[in-house]
Amino acid sequence: MARFFIAASNIVGGVAYLDSKAMDHIKVLRIRNGETFTVCDGSGTDYECRLADTQGANGVAQVLSCAPSGAEPSVKVTVFAAWPKGDKAELIVQKCVELGAGEIVFFPSSRCVVKVDAAGAQKKVMRLGRIAEEAAKQSGRGVIPAVTAAGSFADAVKAACGHDCALFLYEDEKTLGLRTVLEENGKAKSFALMTGPEGGFSPEEADAAAKAGMRSTVMGPRILRCETAPICALTAVMLMSGNMQEGK
Amino acid sequence: MARFFIAASNIVGGVAYLDSKAMDHIKVLRIRNGETFTVCDGSGTDYECRLADTQGANGVAQVLSCAPSGAEPSVKVTVFAAWPKGDKAELIVQKCVELGAGEIVFFPSSRCVVKVDAAGAQKKVMRLGRIAEEAAKQSGRGVIPAVTAAGSFADAVKAACGHDCALFLYEDEKTLGLRTVLEENGKAKSFALMTGPEGGFSPEEADAAAKAGMRSTVMGPRILRCETAPICALTAVMLMSGNMQEGK
Repeated sequence: MARFFIAASNIVGGVAYLDSKAMDHIKVLRIRNGETFTVCDGSGTDYECRLADTQGANGVAQVLSCAPSGAEPSVKVTVFAAWPKGDKAELIVQKCVELGAGEIVFFPSSRCVVKVDAAGAQKKVMRLGRIAEEAAKQSGRGVIPAVTAAGSFADAVKAACGHDCALFLYEDEKTLGLRTVLEENGKAKSFALMTGPEGGFSPEEADAAAKAGMRSTVMGPRILRCETAPICALTAVMLMSGNMQEGK
Repeated sequence: MARFFIAASNIVGGVAYLDSKAMDHIKVLRIRNGETFTVCDGSGTDYECRLADTQGANGVAQVLSCAPSGAEPSVKVTVFAAWPKGDKAELIVQKCVELGAGEIVFFPSSRCVVKVDAAGAQKKVMRLGRIAEEAAKQSGRGVIPAVTAAGSFADAVKAACGHDCALFLYEDEKTLGLRTVLEENGKAKSFALMTGPEGGFSPEEADAAAKAGMRSTVMGPRILRCETAPICALTAVMLMSGNMQEGK
């Protein structure tokens, strides 16, 4: 069934008020009065609607039923990725949204190849937010994950430590493997996954993260590119938390 | 330590004969006579070598020791991916090599957006083979995974069924989740992971795969893009088979 996002404030008293963006979508799909489709409020609720009126740029639909979106995972996972170079941030956002991330936070790290200042970060997260929305639509998500920028490595670590399980994915970690740490955290409801830039984290960053309470974790002997690591870690969390078990 | 591939036939009687490609690499890294580096034969064995002679385009190194490459997984995973459009095949190869795939096979499927004939497939796999080599070097693999093309969907299914555990990743599968099927196959030593094109597999293809003995498996309620599905499935196999536990 056709599916698109509208603001929760546009769903009032059993009626969904369709904005011009939604109407464009409806016209492209040639949905007519009386036909049904799904509207998602971007906060995890899906509304089955019947198109009632399409006069003008906006439209009106009758809400037939509503239910929690079936595609939202039972755990909230925040991906913290060091700013990568080139278009890798786009790939990270697109793939992490598809795979069920709750939020994606980029942060500066000492070995980042690109230096992103506050203005640059603002511009980038605007663009990345649109990629997140597109990926959320395409993958059937009920939430559009926020894409934000932390001002510093320390800020990112502090935010990560607010989760039940905060993992620092570090290729120089010698003992703790990803599966083990996920088995130990089987009851966690929120996860932070922090991954480094092209050159990896510095030992000083690893120390700081450990002191703040993050668990240093390795993902095996193969060296993963900076854009692969968050995709891989997120898949592991979704698998181990039972969020890759059922279909639509 | 610097690391590169040479043909196994160039490692004879305690001496590694370095071809011009390896020598180019040695020159870029400014390795001098008497310094050590790692040569990999592409078949899973690493050789610690000392540079002995660099006269001419080729060079000679003394083999100090050899050992199985520590980055090779304990399971052989063959990824079977339907030909995708654009540059997605490159992404699939790069990421699957990083994540430990043993071989990558592309195949035609009824809903493929691009139609790849035999000549086109030959040209594509040549190019993709170079991407596999580059990714193998970068990620520290001991093997360069082969990239090949199956002539038909039926050929791909037949090849997949030669593995201990052959999974058909199908978004319309209602009951069997990826984690369950991997737990059931904890002792499998070889896995086939077959993923569809942009438009998904047809019901007829799903029936044919099931009749041939493949297990239809779903990866959760979110719709994954065709290039995300193999990356996700491969990560899950590596995690569950204990191949993401230890570092270098």
